[in-house]
Parts: sequence; structure tokens; C-alpha cells
Amino acid sequence: MLESKIIRPTLLLDKAKCLMNIDAMIAKAKRSNTILRPHFKTHQSSEIGKWFMDRGINSIAVSSMSMANYFADNGWMDITLAIPVNVREIDLIDKLASKIQLNLVVESRESILFLESELKHAVGIFIKVDTGYQRCGIPTEATESVRMLVDLMKDAEKLTCKGFLAHTGQNYKAKDQTEIHKNHSKALLDLNELKDLFRKDIPNLIVSLGDTPACSISEEFYGIDEIRPGNFVFYDVMQYVLGSCDENQIAVAMACPIIARNIDRKELVIYGGAIHLSKEYLEADEEGTKLFGSIVRISENGWGEILGGAYLASLSQEHGIIRCSDGLFDSFQIGDLIGILPVHSCLTANLMGQYLSTDGNWLEMMPK
Amino acid sequence: MLESKIIRPTLLLDKAKCLMNIDAMIAKAKRSNTILRPHFKTHQSSEIGKWFMDRGINSIAVSSMSMANYFADNGWMDITLAIPVNVREIDLIDKLASKIQLNLVVESRESILFLESELKHAVGIFIKVDTGYQRCGIPTEATESVRMLVDLMKDAEKLTCKGFLAHTGQNYKAKDQTEIHKNHSKALLDLNELKDLFRKDIPNLIVSLGDTPACSISEEFYGIDEIRPGNFVFYDVMQYVLGSCDENQIAVAMACPIIARNIDRKELVIYGGAIHLSKEYLEADEEGTKLFGSIVRISENGWGEILGGAYLASLSQEHGIIRCSDGLFDSFQIGDLIGILPVHSCLTANLMGQYLSTDGNWLEMMPK
Repeated sequence: MLESKIIRPTLLLDKAKCLMNIDAMIAKAKRSNTILRPHFKTHQSSEIGKWFMDRGINSIAVSSMSMANYFADNGWMDITLAIPVNVREIDLIDKLASKIQLNLVVESRESILFLESELKHAVGIFIKVDTGYQRCGIPTEATESVRMLVDLMKDAEKLTCKGFLAHTGQNYKAKDQTEIHKNHSKALLDLNELKDLFRKDIPNLIVSLGDTPACSISEEFYGIDEIRPGNFVFYDVMQYVLGSCDENQIAVAMACPIIARNIDRKELVIYGGAIHLSKEYLEADEEGTKLFGSIVRISENGWGEILGGAYLASLSQEHGIIRCSDGLFDSFQIGDLIGILPVHSCLTANLMGQYLSTDGNWLEMMPK
Repeated sequence: MLESKIIRPTLLLDKAKCLMNIDAMIAKAKRSNTILRPHFKTHQSSEIGKWFMDRGINSIAVSSMSMANYFADNGWMDITLAIPVNVREIDLIDKLASKIQLNLVVESRESILFLESELKHAVGIFIKVDTGYQRCGIPTEATESVRMLVDLMKDAEKLTCKGFLAHTGQNYKAKDQTEIHKNHSKALLDLNELKDLFRKDIPNLIVSLGDTPACSISEEFYGIDEIRPGNFVFYDVMQYVLGSCDENQIAVAMACPIIARNIDRKELVIYGGAIHLSKEYLEADEEGTKLFGSIVRISENGWGEILGGAYLASLSQEHGIIRCSDGLFDSFQIGDLIGILPVHSCLTANLMGQYLSTDGNWLEMMPK
């Protein structure tokens, strides 16, 4: 049934697995007494967004103004743009701030002064703090720098300081769960110290923390008010390897037609490349063998378990090369579909622009 | 002037450089007595296509049926779909074959039998041969396998065997120009042997060869009838490093707003990530330092030369981190634009979906 609808690389979405992931994270937020503000950059779809809304979620995070506008148009009234504010989009920001509760992220004096001077409408502000990822944000221990920004907003008319926003992104590169727990515990400790220090200065101070690995494997969120995981909605091979999910939680798979077979090298060539999956990879062994995706069989209404003895070994613009064992090689013919579990589902979904649900319906994403 | 139009990551196109690249490749084809069939997967734009058409080019290569249909709708009547045929798209193929000269690429008995049985309209067929890349194709020395396919088409009604199509893709991974020349010479030798062997079996036999490195640096195309480079229309940092182009031939640059600065690490954080540039990288040194793009200053009507002492060191979904020297760091402020020359312009263009020409006009690409 599914098979007959697929003529080219197609991103399959297993709605049951996706809903299971959503429900599990809602339950986790409830248990840990935090607000779940899911990051919608992973799915970028109003329809998947509605599955959250139907379950009582009413605040989200996004990563671009286009995404903020798209979800605002689809009924979301409380949106955090979770990337240091791009001041060049001030007009778009001001317009959206007139319609919804829009929260921005800042980490510099310049941005705060600019926003206060240029905005006509009120926005919430989170100060970006760094819990060790070293991508952006003020290090949690640099409390004087944080204070300077908090003080700058004290008399602001358009800006309400809401608290601190952190992303322990180093968890995506952790070697194992122990390292994720360690990073996460350290982040909790540092954020709680910061919270204690600024409790009096920032009314209803919110500490927002978000990364799928920690939100998936930890049960400890003491002092955290809001969690912002995104990738959990689909998970992927990277998260599976990190231990954030089990195989059955991976909710998307790319179905790709086989276009060539090389019997000497036991390689299947698929129509499906970097413009479909992205060039994100994992190192599969100590020699640095690159893995661009894991292999599954497409079934009538979804896909099966990860096949041992096969992996997506290389990607060019539209071609992919799957290396496989003799037995697997023999079982696939030209024209067959084969499934790829993506290494990084956010990038794959962004490239594909739509989903084919395993129940046979097409789900649209934000137009590019 | 350009500056005021850019509020978010924007792919700039320098039309003068692009036309210079087009004219140079047309001149190269003329000198080498080959037909230029440019691969349009790099730019995917009807407007850029028209620049070729205005210069007398009338045959192109593409990498998907969507692209074939898009360019056919824009007046291209001779299109080679330069990837082993995806038999699942047979209906689309047959429909397009009723309107234009469509050429397909095959490397298996199964595909030939399927096409001959299912097509109602005539197509040209190129046999994919492998000149050492080991991605797909029949090795040029496996002449018996080639003969089997040629013979299979002898009495075909819908399929006309046109010749052999090769892509010396290993040139993209060459260490230096010497290696490219060596790969290319070997490919010429092998293709000429094949041509001699099948000259009597295939009337008007065409040997089609395409890769930007060899087409850019070599002057030797003996026995080659058609060249199919694609990337040369823009070039990029990968081609610059290979020696296929000089810096002034790189015709696209991504303009990205600076959203944060880290003075301790001398890092500029840009709004511009994997969803804009792709995760393609080069290894900048023997320690494997990754380089995701080179840095330029955006000027009033384009961009300047590559800045020494700065490089795009990492990319996440929307953020990029530029490491730079003290002097450069101090010269960039939050809200400024900075330019990135992409490592692989094909993937970057595919992600961006449109261009801002440095003369101030927006150029559209094929809709996704």
C-alpha cells in the first residue's frame, strides 16, 4: 500500500511512534514539574504541531522568524525564538510582537539597547547562558556580565526579562550516557546557582533548558522551569547511538529507490543523496568509517528493524552507496525501495519539505 | 545598496563572475571540439539557464525528473538525466519523452528490459561506465558486460543507444592537480579504447565525460564528444583548493548576519547554519581541522577577497561559528553582515532556493 505511493526519495513518518514520543515527553515534563516548550525546528509542520496542541501544549520554540510567523499563523500564541536575536529582522519581530507573546534571546548589551530603542511592541527576553557547549551565551559563572544585562532591562519599556535560556549542546557529542548525566548535572548546578543569585532581580524568573539527550535520559530537573527539546519528536540514529531513544522510537525513515547494484563490491546504489538526507554522519568505528544512515526494510505500513551488516557508507548530491553483506545484497533488486534511518532527522526533514505518513497521508511543512 | 536588502542568510550571486565562468567553459568546449552539455543541478535556475541558452547552448544534464520537467517547461528540448534511471518514475519519464529528446542512463540489463517494455515513447540511452570513481557504472575494462547491454538495445524500438557516459568523480578528492591530470588521462585512454571497440556497433557513438575539476584544468579531451561539468558555473572553496578555479571565479557567497561575539574565544556567531550552507567541509590541516567555509567581507556590490586568519569552524542547524584573529574580530559587530564562500556551492544553492544577484535582483530556482 505504502510502496505504491513512493516513486522517489520520500520521508516516511510513523505517526504512532511520533505520538508515543510526544506523549512520553509530556509525561516527563509533568513528572519533573516543568513546562514543555517543544522546539518545532525539527518537524516544521503545522499538522504535527497540532498533535502537540491537542495534548495541551501551548508554548513552543522556533529557530527563525519565518518559522515563528508560520506557527503564529497556525494558532501558536506563545513563541520563543531560541537563537540570539538577529537585529536585522527588527521589522518582522516588531510586527509579530504586536500579535503574540514573542520571546527573544539575547546575550549582549548592544542587542538589548537596539531592541529597546527600535521596538514598538513588548517582547519577553531570555538571557542566553552557556552551560559548557561554547557555541554562544554568557558562561553561567560570569555573573557580573549577566547582571549587567539584567540591570539594563530593569527600566526597559518594551523588554521584560523572563530569565535564562541554556542549551547543553555538548550532549550531542557525548561518548555515553554517563557523560550526558554529568553534563546535565553540572548544568543544573550552575543554573540553580544563577537562579538563586537573580531570584530577587527577575520576577517569576524562568530557567529554560533544552536538549533532547538530557531531556530523554534524565529524570532530574530540579530548579528548571521549562524544557525545550526538539529532536525527540522523531529521534534519529544519532540519538539512538547516544542512548536517548530505542530503535522503535525513531519515527522517520527515508524510503529510497535502488537504482544500481555492484555485485563485486556488494554495494547498492540508491537514489537518495546529500540533498535528501544531509551530509551529517557518525563515525562507526575507531578508524573513522563514516555512517550516513542505518538501513531498514520498507514494509506495507512502515519499516522493520535496523539491518545488521549494512550501512549507508557515502553520499553525493543525489546518490547514496549502501555497503552490505552478501545475503542482504542478494535480497534487493533494482527498483526496490530500501529504508534509511537518518543520522540527524532535523536536517533531513528540513531538506525534504514534506512527510508521507505510514497511514498513507501527506503532511506538509512550512513552505521554503 | 546590497546591504540594505539583506536581513537573513542570503545567497549572493555575482553575475559577472558567473558569466565569465560560463564563457570560459564554452570557449574550452570549442577549443577541444566537444559539445558542452552543462549539468544544471548546480544552479537549478531557469534564469541562469537562459544565460547559457543565450550563448548557444541547447543541451543540458540534470539529476532528477523534477529538474528535467522544470527545464523542459523553460524551453530545454534536449536533456540527459545523468543518474542511473529510477524505474519507479517510469510514467513521468514516458510523459516527458513524448515532448523532448530525453536521454537516460543505464548500467543494468534489468533497467534496459524494463524501459523497452514499459515506455511508449522513444528515449536515448547512455551506458554508464566507471572511470575509477567506484560509485556506479560498468568498469570501462569490463567490455563483455558493456557488449551485453549494447546488444540488448540493438533491436529495441524505444531505446537508442547513444554511447557511454562517465564521471571521474574521484577528481573531487584528488590531492593536487597532478592527480587530476593523471585520473583524467587514464579516463581518456580507457574511454577511447571502449569507443574503438564499439564504434561499429553504435552509430554516431557519443562519449560524454563530466567533472568540473578535469574540465577546468585540462586542455586534453581527445576522443571525448561531450563534456558535462556543472559546478563550474559557481565554483566554490572545494574547487579553489583543488585548483579548478581561482578565488575570483567563485560566483556565490552567503551573506550572514552576526548575532553574537565571544571576545574570549575570538569567535563570531553567525545566523547561518547547516540548513543554509550544508555540512560539507574540507580538512584544513593534517590534524583534521574542519573548514565549513571561507570568510569574505560583503561590499556595496559584492564581496572582497578571502580573509586570512578567519574560517567557518563549525555549523549547527542555524548557527555558524567563525574563528578569527584579534584584528578581524574587532572589526565585526553584532548586526553586521559577513560573507561565507561555500565549500560546496551545489548543496548550498539547493538549500537556499533563490539568489540575490549583486546587481540587486532576486533570481528564482526550481520550486521544491
